[in-house]
Amino acid sequence: MNYRMISQVLGRVVALEGMLLLIPMFVAIGYGEPFFHFVKTILIATVLALVLMQPKPRTRDFFAKEGFVTVAFSWIIMSLIGALPYVFSGEIPNYIDALFETVSGFTTTGASIVPSVEAMTHGILLWRCLTIWVGGMGVLVFVMFVVPLSEEHSMHIMRAEMPGPTVGKLVPRIRKTAMILYVIYAALTVILTILLRLCGVNWFDAVIHALSTAGTGGFSSHGTSVAYFDSAAVDAVIAVFCLLFGVNFNLYFFLLIRRFRDVFTNDELRYYLGIVAFAILTITLNLRSYYGSALTAFRYAGFQVASIMTTTGHVTADFDLWPTYSKIVLFLLMFIGGCAGSTSGGIKVSRLIIMGKTIRNDIIHQINPREVHTVRLSGSVVTREVQHTTLVFVALYMLLIFISTLIVSLDNKDFISTFTPVVACVSNVGPAFGIAGATGSYASYSYLSKLVLSADMLMGRLEILPILMLCAPSLWKRSF
Amino acid sequence: MNYRMISQVLGRVVALEGMLLLIPMFVAIGYGEPFFHFVKTILIATVLALVLMQPKPRTRDFFAKEGFVTVAFSWIIMSLIGALPYVFSGEIPNYIDALFETVSGFTTTGASIVPSVEAMTHGILLWRCLTIWVGGMGVLVFVMFVVPLSEEHSMHIMRAEMPGPTVGKLVPRIRKTAMILYVIYAALTVILTILLRLCGVNWFDAVIHALSTAGTGGFSSHGTSVAYFDSAAVDAVIAVFCLLFGVNFNLYFFLLIRRFRDVFTNDELRYYLGIVAFAILTITLNLRSYYGSALTAFRYAGFQVASIMTTTGHVTADFDLWPTYSKIVLFLLMFIGGCAGSTSGGIKVSRLIIMGKTIRNDIIHQINPREVHTVRLSGSVVTREVQHTTLVFVALYMLLIFISTLIVSLDNKDFISTFTPVVACVSNVGPAFGIAGATGSYASYSYLSKLVLSADMLMGRLEILPILMLCAPSLWKRSF
Repeated sequence: MNYRMISQVLGRVVALEGMLLLIPMFVAIGYGEPFFHFVKTILIATVLALVLMQPKPRTRDFFAKEGFVTVAFSWIIMSLIGALPYVFSGEIPNYIDALFETVSGFTTTGASIVPSVEAMTHGILLWRCLTIWVGGMGVLVFVMFVVPLSEEHSMHIMRAEMPGPTVGKLVPRIRKTAMILYVIYAALTVILTILLRLCGVNWFDAVIHALSTAGTGGFSSHGTSVAYFDSAAVDAVIAVFCLLFGVNFNLYFFLLIRRFRDVFTNDELRYYLGIVAFAILTITLNLRSYYGSALTAFRYAGFQVASIMTTTGHVTADFDLWPTYSKIVLFLLMFIGGCAGSTSGGIKVSRLIIMGKTIRNDIIHQINPREVHTVRLSGSVVTREVQHTTLVFVALYMLLIFISTLIVSLDNKDFISTFTPVVACVSNVGPAFGIAGATGSYASYSYLSKLVLSADMLMGRLEILPILMLCAPSLWKRSF
Repeated sequence: MNYRMISQVLGRVVALEGMLLLIPMFVAIGYGEPFFHFVKTILIATVLALVLMQPKPRTRDFFAKEGFVTVAFSWIIMSLIGALPYVFSGEIPNYIDALFETVSGFTTTGASIVPSVEAMTHGILLWRCLTIWVGGMGVLVFVMFVVPLSEEHSMHIMRAEMPGPTVGKLVPRIRKTAMILYVIYAALTVILTILLRLCGVNWFDAVIHALSTAGTGGFSSHGTSVAYFDSAAVDAVIAVFCLLFGVNFNLYFFLLIRRFRDVFTNDELRYYLGIVAFAILTITLNLRSYYGSALTAFRYAGFQVASIMTTTGHVTADFDLWPTYSKIVLFLLMFIGGCAGSTSGGIKVSRLIIMGKTIRNDIIHQINPREVHTVRLSGSVVTREVQHTTLVFVALYMLLIFISTLIVSLDNKDFISTFTPVVACVSNVGPAFGIAGATGSYASYSYLSKLVLSADMLMGRLEILPILMLCAPSLWKRSF
């Protein structure tokens, strides 16, 4: 293991976080708020970055395992430092609570332990949503285009950090790929901000909600989330942008370079929109009598499906009170999540398609052992190896949920408030059902549960393997 | 597809069922109860058997797909006929309810819609538990040793009907294997009956509970299940026998022929006992203050863990009122189930081991791509193909649960009473949580839900594939 090289990259990640912290600091200064908590954190980050970058790497060896370890440690160290402003400012006095909130931000989960968001300062609120925005596209993808790394290093990191069963390069150079993705991401965020402003949302709230929607995180500057604005226009804009950010970003690049065919023949996009349409339609029917009008039912169903399926977690209605069918649909959407290569969490639509087609082929093979079919996704062959990895991922996903539920159950909360928050955290959704539901909070969970849920959010965001690897003894054995 | 050959086997299955119905008929006569509902059903079965056996097979071709189809149709037809005595006697007037109860019996689930078991006649109560006993070891395994089939046919049927990732023959001839298994099964059932009688249970109740424990079904002749006897001795005997019937029956054969090494080195047995011990120990600790004494807690924890893990479903305590940790452990045990080649349901311990080891190897491979490890179960290599099939099975299992939950949610019962009964039915446990909990019943679910849950029980018992295959269009295409 090339520890010195890993340390180098980690140093750059921490340095970048220090720079990012300048933004909320200046905002705090602009609003005349206390800002010393940012200064202190920036100083700590700077010192740590210098220490980490001290040992010069002897070799430039950097393989897949170094990629995984770098990504895992980066996200952990970012969260550990990112929690400091909350503690220093006293706005979240307990460090474990602050860590939970930070991990929730970086992993774009949006699960919160804050009792009163409205009481927080502008600087802290911005930092909270900035963690979502950076976490959405990937911390190291960001590092890659700020600080140049070799092509080989970058690919290993990209593979470990980008969600989805496979990672494609848009252009031959991976740094350029990363930059293109970030530019599209930033452009969409700016457009969303402007649209929200046009809907009458003030600039600060517009920025906050644009950042947290772009990263499909779901933090808000209001305790009642998007319901606060009570505007059908705002609901519509945010719902549509949730869905846009749940799409594979590669498709936007294809649109830009006018490769429309690649967009229209994309299997994942078709299934994604199909699931969304099915969910909105059936929930609207299910909610008709609950809201007294099909149109109102459509408004709330549409928003909540877009928000939950893309694992954003914005809320306009207390869906805990909805009929069971609607709740179960939302619950199942939490598992699915958005498309690979988007900012959303969950198992991802493409994995579900691969799984479904693999099962279908296996059944056909059982019936006619001589018939051999290949699994295809958007025309490309999915190798037996990728099928295997996909199935292993889904199995791991369920195992992670079950084991975490077992630990969280020690809190002795009711069944729903034990099981669904784990699903909501692993899938990076945020709000669950019960105590941690649409109008609830994670505040009352024990520190043990909060740590487990934080680990779940990290594993969900990094798709389990990088974090799980850290626990494998063979990783730490000296290689010869 | 060799329809004539399939029809032959189905005819024999129906004929066998007709013979089985003689047992509860004579019991009904002995107790001076009405028995005409049995006579009517036996007549129908006889006629149907004759019709099915009419077309003489032109070829003796019988491949895997014929095996799957035969097993699937056998179980469906057995259930359709087995439901008739309930309807004819008026003890369960509605046919869908009666079908639910019959499927629940044959699949050894033990989920019930009967409002008052005590009001049922002895004949019907015995038939109810006889379905469990026959379903436990397999309907067709039974047919095989009553009516000789060719070696090849038998193997295809055995593969489709026996639970577990792989099927082994104990002796070169499969018919003999089936006979040995049934003799062990019957012997254990007789021993259990005698032990229960020695504990002071009357003969009828002893037989009823022995049959339903042997098949890990869980039907009782009392509304309060095993709690009715209120005896620590009865609890202990039944709990131990639940665990015994959850073990792969091959191991008993190994014990008989003194191949002790094969028993002690059996991975699945070790993990099975390990999980049971862990569950009992931690639930006992969790229940200490609930019951006020560790010993009482141990009694109820031990019984419920043995009953749920082996998917029997006998009840001595209303575990719906237990603290959340205990409930979650029981809930997770429902997924796991017992050992392959036992009468229990669930995913099976061996599949869990294969899954765990596959995941472990994949992680090691990711860390050191040059290292290649093989997955072993009790010393034998688990091929990549079996790993794949195991992962596909687990994925299908979860998909089945999720899709069924979606349909059952239309009943608009609460979240727990929607989700956990599906798990309890797919895993062939019986009691779930909420409305269908320890003291509850499935009576209040809609007919749609009852049909879906019946299908779930069948799919769970036959390990999904045979039933799912019936829906594959390519099965019904003419082959050339």
